Amino acid sequence: MSHTEFTTTTNEFIGTAAGHTIGMVIPNIDPEVRTLLKIPEQYSSLGILTSRTGAAAQAFSVDEAAKACNVELLIFELPRDTEGYSGHGNLIVLGAYDVSDARRAVEVALTLIDEKAERIYINEVGHMEMHVTANAGPVLHQIFDAPLGKAFGFICAGPAGIAIVAADTAVKSSPVDIVWYGTPSINLSRTNEVIIGVSGDYGAVKKAVDTAYEKASALIEVFGQKPASILHFKPIESTDKAE
Amino acid sequence: MSHTEFTTTTNEFIGTAAGHTIGMVIPNIDPEVRTLLKIPEQYSSLGILTSRTGAAAQAFSVDEAAKACNVELLIFELPRDTEGYSGHGNLIVLGAYDVSDARRAVEVALTLIDEKAERIYINEVGHMEMHVTANAGPVLHQIFDAPLGKAFGFICAGPAGIAIVAADTAVKSSPVDIVWYGTPSINLSRTNEVIIGVSGDYGAVKKAVDTAYEKASALIEVFGQKPASILHFKPIESTDKAE
Amino acid sequence: MSHTEFTTTTNEFIGTAAGHTIGMVIPNIDPEVRTLLKIPEQYSSLGILTSRTGAAAQAFSVDEAAKACNVELLIFELPRDTEGYSGHGNLIVLGAYDVSDARRAVEVALTLIDEKAERIYINEVGHMEMHVTANAGPVLHQIFDAPLGKAFGFICAGPAGIAIVAADTAVKSSPVDIVWYGTPSINLSRTNEVIIGVSGDYGAVKKAVDTAYEKASALIEVFGQKPASILHFKPIESTDKAE
Repeated sequence: MSHTEFTTTTNEFIGTAAGHTIGMVIPNIDPEVRTLLKIPEQYSSLGILTSRTGAAAQAFSVDEAAKACNVELLIFELPRDTEGYSGHGNLIVLGAYDVSDARRAVEVALTLIDEKAERIYINEVGHMEMHVTANAGPVLHQIFDAPLGKAFGFICAGPAGIAIVAADTAVKSSPVDIVWYGTPSINLSRTNEVIIGVSGDYGAVKKAVDTAYEKASALIEVFGQKPASILHFKPIESTDKAE
Repeated sequence: MSHTEFTTTTNEFIGTAAGHTIGMVIPNIDPEVRTLLKIPEQYSSLGILTSRTGAAAQAFSVDEAAKACNVELLIFELPRDTEGYSGHGNLIVLGAYDVSDARRAVEVALTLIDEKAERIYINEVGHMEMHVTANAGPVLHQIFDAPLGKAFGFICAGPAGIAIVAADTAVKSSPVDIVWYGTPSINLSRTNEVIIGVSGDYGAVKKAVDTAYEKASALIEVFGQKPASILHFKPIESTDKAE
Repeated sequence: MSHTEFTTTTNEFIGTAAGHTIGMVIPNIDPEVRTLLKIPEQYSSLGILTSRTGAAAQAFSVDEAAKACNVELLIFELPRDTEGYSGHGNLIVLGAYDVSDARRAVEVALTLIDEKAERIYINEVGHMEMHVTANAGPVLHQIFDAPLGKAFGFICAGPAGIAIVAADTAVKSSPVDIVWYGTPSINLSRTNEVIIGVSGDYGAVKKAVDTAYEKASALIEVFGQKPASILHFKPIESTDKAE
């Protein structure tokens, strides 16, 4: 989803992806900026991904990129964003020994973000993100305490209380362990959502996330349409259901 | 304002109310989720209310519900939300010995939220919430340090500085004590508002809140229309006053 | 940009300015509100400025006002606001010995905010603020650790990662020192931006800020139009570039 054919951009620009994500590289970081951002000395190049909408789609994508490319996650911050919704955007900085590693990791991540954004859902009022990986890598381990090499599921919905009901149903439906969680004022950025991260056998994790999806989707739907991916969502001008 | 006639929902769903509020119950909380949310052992059922818009309308409503029903406030969090404005949404969790208590408390609260949202006001730029109770109960005591059984008033406006002028005028007009306050970075969630909670005789509290309402309303009106309740507000397409 | 000809307002109202800014005074602060806001005893009057959009345009303007008028910065808070964007609004409280000083400072600041808002830029997705002063005064010193009497530049862009690339380019282009910085979770209010404050010779500071402007503008432009000042920005209904 690159716009390089339309725009005058800089040599740091790699491309864009869903969720108003932009991917960039810094080939050779300035010493003063290095100190500021606490970039370890061994890395001279940075890969940077930053989005207005989405946290886990980007985290799961960067996890795959870090497995495939020689980069390390250095910064993962969650601004309160998601444009008109009350979820997260993100700021992701990857360290690399050289610029080709940084560039490749950003390219891989951008491609995956376009796929994984399929599972960021919204309707007129609510939002949710639901993701599963069979094999959590170093990035999901760092951010969400996902056990390395095990299946990991991400369950997020807002308004926040909806995710508590969805999480309760999910963990009752399937033998998973909750390994991470966030509420508006715990681990999150005052966003209107609750998140749990679950670990276990792949089948169990997938079932928990699917169950949470069905429950949260039905609850968010009381405010409007059935939630659809941000890639496809079309607001309806007037609906009897909207308040 | 329930939409049960239109939607397929879950058995946890109770109803909706103003401010994009949804009310739900969990009849029998999962042990893992109980640990996560630190739900005391004596409660097996939860009542959950969560909104995109409003903090005090919901808090005052739940305070009445807690007086009328056998529930205890366990979680009250204030995400930064209010959709296009810079105020709060909310996440409210009530503990109950059985599901009928939880359900009844949520039903009572939803009905009251539809009434009290009359006093959440917006115009094109600003927002305010102004509430009074003659008799603060356990929920307002827990959240805002309101003295139990005494009159309590809630004064909130944004952009934040407007509420300082409104609060100053209010407390000069009437013999009340300020028992709680918040600014964007103190007690609040980086919202663009200032809040004071005032206690005293009912007449004094009511006068302070009415004075604050008049002052904040006049100041917010410099940015557009006279602020109207979120239940009635209609944006004007083009106005000479809008910047 | 005062609307006094259109509206019924209060005697505390001074005027409005860009960024949905309102300027007010409290001639004689209430003792209870004084205690709450920790206003020093020597000040009886307050000047108040508060905006939905902008942080540095207002800070730089108040810095000039504080040099010209007999006031001291007492409160500077940064709510997460900027309306549809993920930047800051502001709450600014100035202490004055008498109301004429407070009024004059607010008037000076409002006039300057209308000028400096020229350098708050947005497009469909991103935002940035870029400011330079030849001579940082007490307000910029207090807020951003700007060395007193030296040139100071402010570089801010969002989504956050864009500002890292812009900052890196800026400090490579020109011999400046970074004296302050913020990321979504460091020094900022979970906004989707990174900020650096730079100090040095005026020419060097100006070059760094101009370089950052060009870089951030080109990167934000991949999401839509070339960023324009909030004073002039016109959204385009449909654009091939928007996602």
